[in-house]
Amino acid sequence: MNQMNVNIAFIGYGTVAQGFTEIILEKEKKLHELYGLTIKVVAISDIMKGSVYEENGLNMRDILSLVKNGKSLEDYPAGVIGLNSLETITKTNADTILEVSYTDIITGEPALTHIRTALRAGKNVISTNKGPAVKQADQLLKIAKKNKVYYGFEGTVLSGTPALNLAQYALSGIDITEFRGILNGTTNYILARMEEGMPYEEALEKAQKLGYAEADPTGDIEGLDALGKVIILTNVVLRKKIALSDVKRQGITNISMNDIKKAQKQGRKWKLIGRAKIQKDGSVLASVLPEKLPLSDPLANVHEAANALTFITDELGPVTIIGPGAGRRETGFALLIDLINMKNHISFDSHN
Amino acid sequence: MNQMNVNIAFIGYGTVAQGFTEIILEKEKKLHELYGLTIKVVAISDIMKGSVYEENGLNMRDILSLVKNGKSLEDYPAGVIGLNSLETITKTNADTILEVSYTDIITGEPALTHIRTALRAGKNVISTNKGPAVKQADQLLKIAKKNKVYYGFEGTVLSGTPALNLAQYALSGIDITEFRGILNGTTNYILARMEEGMPYEEALEKAQKLGYAEADPTGDIEGLDALGKVIILTNVVLRKKIALSDVKRQGITNISMNDIKKAQKQGRKWKLIGRAKIQKDGSVLASVLPEKLPLSDPLANVHEAANALTFITDELGPVTIIGPGAGRRETGFALLIDLINMKNHISFDSHN
Repeated sequence: MNQMNVNIAFIGYGTVAQGFTEIILEKEKKLHELYGLTIKVVAISDIMKGSVYEENGLNMRDILSLVKNGKSLEDYPAGVIGLNSLETITKTNADTILEVSYTDIITGEPALTHIRTALRAGKNVISTNKGPAVKQADQLLKIAKKNKVYYGFEGTVLSGTPALNLAQYALSGIDITEFRGILNGTTNYILARMEEGMPYEEALEKAQKLGYAEADPTGDIEGLDALGKVIILTNVVLRKKIALSDVKRQGITNISMNDIKKAQKQGRKWKLIGRAKIQKDGSVLASVLPEKLPLSDPLANVHEAANALTFITDELGPVTIIGPGAGRRETGFALLIDLINMKNHISFDSHN
Repeated sequence: MNQMNVNIAFIGYGTVAQGFTEIILEKEKKLHELYGLTIKVVAISDIMKGSVYEENGLNMRDILSLVKNGKSLEDYPAGVIGLNSLETITKTNADTILEVSYTDIITGEPALTHIRTALRAGKNVISTNKGPAVKQADQLLKIAKKNKVYYGFEGTVLSGTPALNLAQYALSGIDITEFRGILNGTTNYILARMEEGMPYEEALEKAQKLGYAEADPTGDIEGLDALGKVIILTNVVLRKKIALSDVKRQGITNISMNDIKKAQKQGRKWKLIGRAKIQKDGSVLASVLPEKLPLSDPLANVHEAANALTFITDELGPVTIIGPGAGRRETGFALLIDLINMKNHISFDSHN
């Protein structure tokens, strides 16, 4: 087994980055033994928490402790402080950038600039930020290829549940012509409560209390989050480009308790389904819409906040994966999957 | 992308090998463009159909046509005929052996000897034969490692639906402590018919007519087929060794229509579940038993002859994959997945 030492810089140090840090501290020995992987975090730059760079590696237990006690990263007792995100990307000895900054989903910034800068500087990038992948996955993969570095973004779709890696590696050689999925856990949770008779407003409130839904839940309930994932999957898995405006979209706010009950009588369940299909003329038909599924569809039986994705394939027919689609450790873990794949030189393809 | 030319020899040329041949003929251009893979079949040795070796590559359209017309491979108009399986493995210019011979599931022979001989001769092996993987997956992986070659056996578990590759690559870095699955399509099909009120004997007959069940269905209905898969998954995914005799086993023949109806009233479904779990003391508890699952379990909703597998993981909780578990093209496709992974130097680990 080939060995690899990775020098990491975090751009952004929120919950996902902290979840990843916990995982690599707990799995340090296993990652070395099973994958030949030795990880050193050399720099962190966070717009709120400050910035620290120590070329020989930061003590990540001390870093977690600082952050959990609400202190600044600049209270770390050694290293260089005050580098901004772009300086951290270009002026440190990090070879791999974990881009997990707080980012606008529509513009993709500042993550898009971070990722592009890093790839052009010959640094690998792993990011769970959806914005850049939605807007420019293909261009970024091309820049990565040109600079012989890696751009991984598994965590943008179903957090750590394999979606892109499942399609590209576990199913190597297959043709996927269509996918459909439950790509948002918040809406699935709300629909599950409504199935039990809880009114929409109460179910939404409960989802917010549990941390599934944001204070402003628009992105989830109007289907915008699922829409971004449909774009990424279409780009990477179907190898086709579509724009946000090409996708018919409707959220779950128009589904009434009466609709739910009527469906139950028919032996069906309402689910918010994101889907895309390559048509005979090569164009793509994509949508995010509430659909009334028969119970024989595996997606109808996806419970609570779980996510699921069915690929329609040439050789195997439908293949479905079900797992979590969000969470700090779950999304942090997606960074680790990509890191190990990076080590094994397996990268997503860009298409033309 | 690195390029790779593979010279293949088939040991055994039954339905799976023919399914694989059709796939590579149809996907030839894509495999080259997307994966840098150029496949040449140089030899075939089949105990019934004869043997042919042509070092510059056989015309596989002509080979398929011979076989489909019931002719001997030795009617092929060029090349060397008459090499037996071991000569085909050791005395041809094949670098990769696709071992798909007709093999005794209990002894694993003659596949076991074929695989061992090939690996020791420094040739890669991809095999869908369960026997050798059940008996000696770990030893064979060690021989492969020592000789710097590849041994792939994805197709032994869920045909082309990713099971081993899902655990080892798409879920890189995860700890799997337990799995449970519907690992046999025939029994799932029979139980589905019984759910609809069809008596067991009639359902079995229908499964045989559809080609799901063998003329002697013992291997399926008594849980022996699922048992072999539990052993392989325990070995590769849980990284623990267990023997056939360590696994409690019961088939579906004792499930009466009355049992099915009682379960339906409780909102449950009978399924034949293969499972294994690492216990606190490090030992493994494994079984193949009919279980009465609640409808909230994704495995309860696996229909017809589909298979499914749930991994219980440290970072993601349960992750479930659902897809076909048998079929000539589906199993042939598993050979292709392994071939592409071989090219990418990603191989299953042996454990200690």
